[in-house]
Amino acid sequence: MASGFHEECGVCAVGGHGDAANLVYLGLYALQHRGQESAGIASFDGETLHVHRAMGHVAEVFNREALQKLPGQVALGHVRYATAGASSLVNAQPLVARTHRGAMALAHNGNLVNAAQLRSALESEGAIFHSTADSEVFLHLLARSRAAPVEAALLEALAAAAGAYALVVVCNERLFAARDPHGFRPLALGRLEDAWVVASESCAFDLIGARFLREVAPGEVVELGDKEPTVLRQGTAEGWAQCIFEHVYFARPDSVVFGESVAVVRERMGMRLAQEHPAAADVVVAVPDSGLPAALGFSRRSGLPLALGLVRNHYVGRTFIEPRQSILHFGVKVKLNAVRALVAGKRVVLVDDSLVRGTTAQKIVALLKAAGATEVHLRIASPPTRHPCFFGIDTPQRQELIAARESVEAICAFVGAESLGYLSEEGMLSAFTAAPRGFCTACFSGRYPLLGRDAPGVLPKEER
Amino acid sequence: MASGFHEECGVCAVGGHGDAANLVYLGLYALQHRGQESAGIASFDGETLHVHRAMGHVAEVFNREALQKLPGQVALGHVRYATAGASSLVNAQPLVARTHRGAMALAHNGNLVNAAQLRSALESEGAIFHSTADSEVFLHLLARSRAAPVEAALLEALAAAAGAYALVVVCNERLFAARDPHGFRPLALGRLEDAWVVASESCAFDLIGARFLREVAPGEVVELGDKEPTVLRQGTAEGWAQCIFEHVYFARPDSVVFGESVAVVRERMGMRLAQEHPAAADVVVAVPDSGLPAALGFSRRSGLPLALGLVRNHYVGRTFIEPRQSILHFGVKVKLNAVRALVAGKRVVLVDDSLVRGTTAQKIVALLKAAGATEVHLRIASPPTRHPCFFGIDTPQRQELIAARESVEAICAFVGAESLGYLSEEGMLSAFTAAPRGFCTACFSGRYPLLGRDAPGVLPKEER
Amino acid sequence: MASGFHEECGVCAVGGHGDAANLVYLGLYALQHRGQESAGIASFDGETLHVHRAMGHVAEVFNREALQKLPGQVALGHVRYATAGASSLVNAQPLVARTHRGAMALAHNGNLVNAAQLRSALESEGAIFHSTADSEVFLHLLARSRAAPVEAALLEALAAAAGAYALVVVCNERLFAARDPHGFRPLALGRLEDAWVVASESCAFDLIGARFLREVAPGEVVELGDKEPTVLRQGTAEGWAQCIFEHVYFARPDSVVFGESVAVVRERMGMRLAQEHPAAADVVVAVPDSGLPAALGFSRRSGLPLALGLVRNHYVGRTFIEPRQSILHFGVKVKLNAVRALVAGKRVVLVDDSLVRGTTAQKIVALLKAAGATEVHLRIASPPTRHPCFFGIDTPQRQELIAARESVEAICAFVGAESLGYLSEEGMLSAFTAAPRGFCTACFSGRYPLLGRDAPGVLPKEER
Amino acid sequence: MASGFHEECGVCAVGGHGDAANLVYLGLYALQHRGQESAGIASFDGETLHVHRAMGHVAEVFNREALQKLPGQVALGHVRYATAGASSLVNAQPLVARTHRGAMALAHNGNLVNAAQLRSALESEGAIFHSTADSEVFLHLLARSRAAPVEAALLEALAAAAGAYALVVVCNERLFAARDPHGFRPLALGRLEDAWVVASESCAFDLIGARFLREVAPGEVVELGDKEPTVLRQGTAEGWAQCIFEHVYFARPDSVVFGESVAVVRERMGMRLAQEHPAAADVVVAVPDSGLPAALGFSRRSGLPLALGLVRNHYVGRTFIEPRQSILHFGVKVKLNAVRALVAGKRVVLVDDSLVRGTTAQKIVALLKAAGATEVHLRIASPPTRHPCFFGIDTPQRQELIAARESVEAICAFVGAESLGYLSEEGMLSAFTAAPRGFCTACFSGRYPLLGRDAPGVLPKEER
Repeated sequence: MASGFHEECGVCAVGGHGDAANLVYLGLYALQHRGQESAGIASFDGETLHVHRAMGHVAEVFNREALQKLPGQVALGHVRYATAGASSLVNAQPLVARTHRGAMALAHNGNLVNAAQLRSALESEGAIFHSTADSEVFLHLLARSRAAPVEAALLEALAAAAGAYALVVVCNERLFAARDPHGFRPLALGRLEDAWVVASESCAFDLIGARFLREVAPGEVVELGDKEPTVLRQGTAEGWAQCIFEHVYFARPDSVVFGESVAVVRERMGMRLAQEHPAAADVVVAVPDSGLPAALGFSRRSGLPLALGLVRNHYVGRTFIEPRQSILHFGVKVKLNAVRALVAGKRVVLVDDSLVRGTTAQKIVALLKAAGATEVHLRIASPPTRHPCFFGIDTPQRQELIAARESVEAICAFVGAESLGYLSEEGMLSAFTAAPRGFCTACFSGRYPLLGRDAPGVLPKEER
Repeated sequence: MASGFHEECGVCAVGGHGDAANLVYLGLYALQHRGQESAGIASFDGETLHVHRAMGHVAEVFNREALQKLPGQVALGHVRYATAGASSLVNAQPLVARTHRGAMALAHNGNLVNAAQLRSALESEGAIFHSTADSEVFLHLLARSRAAPVEAALLEALAAAAGAYALVVVCNERLFAARDPHGFRPLALGRLEDAWVVASESCAFDLIGARFLREVAPGEVVELGDKEPTVLRQGTAEGWAQCIFEHVYFARPDSVVFGESVAVVRERMGMRLAQEHPAAADVVVAVPDSGLPAALGFSRRSGLPLALGLVRNHYVGRTFIEPRQSILHFGVKVKLNAVRALVAGKRVVLVDDSLVRGTTAQKIVALLKAAGATEVHLRIASPPTRHPCFFGIDTPQRQELIAARESVEAICAFVGAESLGYLSEEGMLSAFTAAPRGFCTACFSGRYPLLGRDAPGVLPKEER
Repeated sequence: MASGFHEECGVCAVGGHGDAANLVYLGLYALQHRGQESAGIASFDGETLHVHRAMGHVAEVFNREALQKLPGQVALGHVRYATAGASSLVNAQPLVARTHRGAMALAHNGNLVNAAQLRSALESEGAIFHSTADSEVFLHLLARSRAAPVEAALLEALAAAAGAYALVVVCNERLFAARDPHGFRPLALGRLEDAWVVASESCAFDLIGARFLREVAPGEVVELGDKEPTVLRQGTAEGWAQCIFEHVYFARPDSVVFGESVAVVRERMGMRLAQEHPAAADVVVAVPDSGLPAALGFSRRSGLPLALGLVRNHYVGRTFIEPRQSILHFGVKVKLNAVRALVAGKRVVLVDDSLVRGTTAQKIVALLKAAGATEVHLRIASPPTRHPCFFGIDTPQRQELIAARESVEAICAFVGAESLGYLSEEGMLSAFTAAPRGFCTACFSGRYPLLGRDAPGVLPKEER
Repeated sequence: MASGFHEECGVCAVGGHGDAANLVYLGLYALQHRGQESAGIASFDGETLHVHRAMGHVAEVFNREALQKLPGQVALGHVRYATAGASSLVNAQPLVARTHRGAMALAHNGNLVNAAQLRSALESEGAIFHSTADSEVFLHLLARSRAAPVEAALLEALAAAAGAYALVVVCNERLFAARDPHGFRPLALGRLEDAWVVASESCAFDLIGARFLREVAPGEVVELGDKEPTVLRQGTAEGWAQCIFEHVYFARPDSVVFGESVAVVRERMGMRLAQEHPAAADVVVAVPDSGLPAALGFSRRSGLPLALGLVRNHYVGRTFIEPRQSILHFGVKVKLNAVRALVAGKRVVLVDDSLVRGTTAQKIVALLKAAGATEVHLRIASPPTRHPCFFGIDTPQRQELIAARESVEAICAFVGAESLGYLSEEGMLSAFTAAPRGFCTACFSGRYPLLGRDAPGVLPKEER
């Protein structure tokens, strides 16, 4: 909850199964943490493309009737998070179109850096856009391509797009999956009997009983039709820039992402954090739930006992009505409460996954002290977040990132902790078994792989 | 989640504060775990009694407009859980009435054992009941009492009622709180500046910044008007039968209930469990979230490392649509997933707070084994649940309680674990600092305090 | 539309038919003009009393599912109009209660003049009222009566009530109908095969194919069980005070009310009006739809041609959003438009059923003149309305009745007409074949039958 | 109600007024009879094109909040009726698009006969359609046109479209109105102070206080910007084919359509009908409300008195729940009831505007006879409807038109009347002052002006 970084989407597709839409629905259920604003599924039944999209959570958007109206052997779905301005049903995915090639549907996770240019060019040729989403560019590129077979049109469309995409596309009964050459966003491939399953995270496979096969490789484009995936474009061998924030915060701990268990990586980050920034304290307390794996790692490596000193209210709704006379730290208290009996008189190590604006951390520190903690040593299981993201993550403006403005000492003073320690970039990367060169760490380091430069200033806000 | 026992209500009241209804709303927010079916608040503004009740969670039932229509210095509220049959708006509380004494409102947590008899007698005198709830009996008793002052009428009404009640009553601008002589259900008293706050659990005080003063004692009836509570009926000195299941499962870990921190008691239960039923294993895994404190205690005492081997999906809606071809253990998988990387090849100690039907435990054991756990040793941080409750808890029928039918060995075989250990009743009681004689343990022991006998057979189903 | 007097209720009941609730639903459909605020039906299936009530029109309140949950051979229903303050679901009828006599339901059209006294007495004995409706008094009187058989209790309850009532009551499977001794409000009795049907107006019988038998007589109380109605209380022979406004405006023209065809009576009133107040004009224009029968009568007697010079918009919703710069006579224009081709250059006789505040008539006169009418001669097919009603009709306060304050000349000037003529009281009564002594004409004459005096000042506003 | 022909749309636009959207909303209110399925408004505020569309009546679709989100000096709106299959929100108008020319919005009444071909051609060039409506073709033609100024693009787009259109188009702050060269559908031009108003019927002007100027001529295209309309395309001098059914049934009687008062024309048709088909009868009864003007004309010419022998229920909802045992003529009885006192023992002339399937007329005849009418002479104020429409009216399939299959004698027998008379085509045309050559009478005569042949067989069903 403390992040302030938001995943923008999750995608899921099933091909070759009589219950395709229902399985996609369950897959979206498992991917709900990747986007809570709208959800949608499209299916093709051999003749007609069906689609159902609405604002809200997967459980609200779909009921039995809605799913029964999505027949067919192939289906794809999408969950979407969006910033307030662009939040509306027209941007809900999957996007669908009837084209001269037949019915098309697509679901996209990621952001294109040349979306505005592509859109402007398409509009000047008479294309009519119905949404403000980057993803609609793909649809028009596909509809306009003169390339005869759909796979050629798909490769042509992808060649025009620069930026981040994990993409699933249905054209009539055919199913395609694609990842951009840098591999910013994850996309996993699985099997359920003779059916194909594609999803942003492997946790979607567990729910429907599918077997995780492998990830779609960065740059790879595959058609999922026969016994083996048909590779339409080979994956890239280098230049990988997989989003490390998936491991820091976004992905579910039970997923395997970029080849590594998220839960294990987070625990290792916590262990390394204990090594880099030990603390003279009595107990380790996690910011639930995202800080728990790292806190457990910290406790294990440091030998300090873990205490469940913060309790999360699981019934928090989307809005609250505050009384006229404002309650101190109300915003965080509706979500979290400190357990006095566990922290009173204790020196507390407080562990969270990341620190974005610092305001939530400040309130949690105050909460613990009000409950009697004598000292609070804040430990963050990732480096300072100093740079916004342009590849599919909704991040605050740079000036709102406290670490972009302030020193570690100043941040420590701001949040009111006795000490503050961030995991180093090197330490973060050491939590992975695989070689560290494959990650995008731009939000921490400012090294934007695609742009080949260190500063994001070249990208106007509108392109985000 | 594994319990199958359900709390039936939570109550909250505020007297002497200009924002009374808004504070009660927040209090109900904190008590949402005690009842998710309906919510309501009544307030009195010096002239008129206002009330707003609806089916649904607190966050759904109230918006700013609804709260603005609840003016006044005194307000009380209620969250309700109910079994399917009686689930409807007419049973939503607070109950309100215009009587010759003025406007009355009440909110009740508990069950009366003589409700049917009282109701029948009242109806034969012409009383018209509008709900099927026990609690309406109080309202008619109050309206019909010939006792002149309202406090006398209240004592008269309470004298007629046998069973469990934690009760808050508003009569015009006056506020009363009462607990039955056995003290089955909890009720705490707090102060927010010059205002009084009453709530089922102290976690409600934390959210609104109120100070916990003490519990309303078993048998005590107080008016909350002046600087000190006016005691209208003294608390009982013995015969206490406070519901131990509040500590086992119901109450929030950040609450202080019956004078003890729930989080601390649960951790101690886990420690004692490790002592009573050690296991040769590699990791301790909790059933999240309710089993976590006990699992932590087990880990600490046993020295076995805690692993976050089960992940809970926080976006679970109220219903799911299963595909036609049912997915193995689907029901539990939408809520929980095992983390293969943490449990594969491991001998797992699985800790939960209680075991009711055994069906969920069976699925979780299977989930862990499917994720590669080589052994699962199930440990339950409470004794076998063998008897239904008649005092405000919704429990399955006796024959559905697996421990009422089967031996520990048979249950172990049923759930598919390598071993099974329950905490002993003595062990459970040892987790409290206070003397153990004050608890009702009927669901474990069958010793029903009120009835003075060991078997519940005397109570027909209708009285529940 | 021009009236400003509003019927407050319609009732309907069916006994001895397997589709009782569905027939009542259709009956309410036909009675919708008598109340559009809430609708409800209760049915008894031999064991359980079912009820469904909601705010809104009959077509909105009931769907197939709602009706299927109303099984049984006996059912009764209610449509309700209410003034703003008391408009809420708790006042929706039928009222239902479980009593020591069994399940009871009732639907009431009318107002009691001693409701406040009865209510106060009942509350001082401990009765808890759930609505602010007069009608609930009947329910408590029935529940409290010591009289052994229900018919005795019913007679006892009715004996206590003074004022206007057309009442249908269900007690378990038994069905009763009653009218007050003055017979203020109508109540008709019909047969559908072997089933009984009771309704406020006979138009309800036409829709369901029932045969009109007779009216329940003023003062009569009947049980509808066997082949013949069992008369429990004989009707009164004199003192009848049947509401003449039913014929002037409320009742549907296709109904037979108090033994006379409403359509025929209205036409005759128009004929008599032409005789009493002829006009030198070119065309007769009705205020649609309520003024049409009288306008036709006026045209026929006067020999002046009828012109459809005002058109009503049939799609008028409940609210409109006016532009910032207000449109002249907007309020009436959304409902009515003048047909320039029919009225331009013409001297128009404008006929309406009644004139209450005068503001609508003023706007219609202006509308006609803006469309080119050279003269407008307003003719009202009833006498000046000068007195409020206390017997079941919602009327404006006395000072809002323009005829209570102003002379005919002043009213004519106010509405902007060239001349104004009201039908005389004698003329109005002459439109009936039956002897005129049987009517309440208090709103015109100020002779309140029940009160035995000419001024309503004795009745405080609260009693209405 | 007896027609079975349904208008498919109404359009309205306002330019140069600060309250443009609110005025369009009121205009749509007045045009509600032209389409009840969906409603929408788009406005342009100098920067942004706003749009609000939803299923339902105008009063349901718009509230104050919705209108406040439609700022700007120019706005256009649409009400839509559609056959079941294509009934959905995606087809709701106005259609909007962001193009390289800026923001565009359009509202269209009519049907194109070459829509399918145009659509197919556009799709093969990559256009992505979002609706199944003909009208979207205009949008793509406008977006794709290479013509530089928008007015050139509009003329180019219209040149490609064959069929019926009354069209309003907004491009940024500019407002255009167009009618097809045959002038099938009506479109009127009005002034409100300095603002322009365009609407399908003049009744929309009356409601908002605008002045009717003239009709947009068949074939004319105008821009409404300065003091005078700028004519972009001259109207046609011949080949006019204005829909005569607007006068027979669709248009509101208070409108002036194609230069004639609808009310006057209908009355004249009734007079001519009396002349062509006199009847030996006692009373003339109209099918309300559409048959009333013709019935009045019949009464006047024949000298037979008009009787209000059929009463319409003004509270009819969209669906009813019939009882299990079906009621005779239920469908028509929920809408109409006969007044026994006015028709019993009488020979009735029953007048309706048109006769499509004959089933409703059959039920009404039966209704009158059940109420005691001794004879019913059915008179239809238009010729037999024998041919479907392809120009914007939803008509039944040809085989469902009773006059396409049966002789007048057979129809008379089918409906159960004593005699049946249709107005002749010559008689119908004689009701107009203007020369009769300007009308499309294809539904009566089978002479389809656009197609130049007598049979509609060349048009496959899909093109409708």
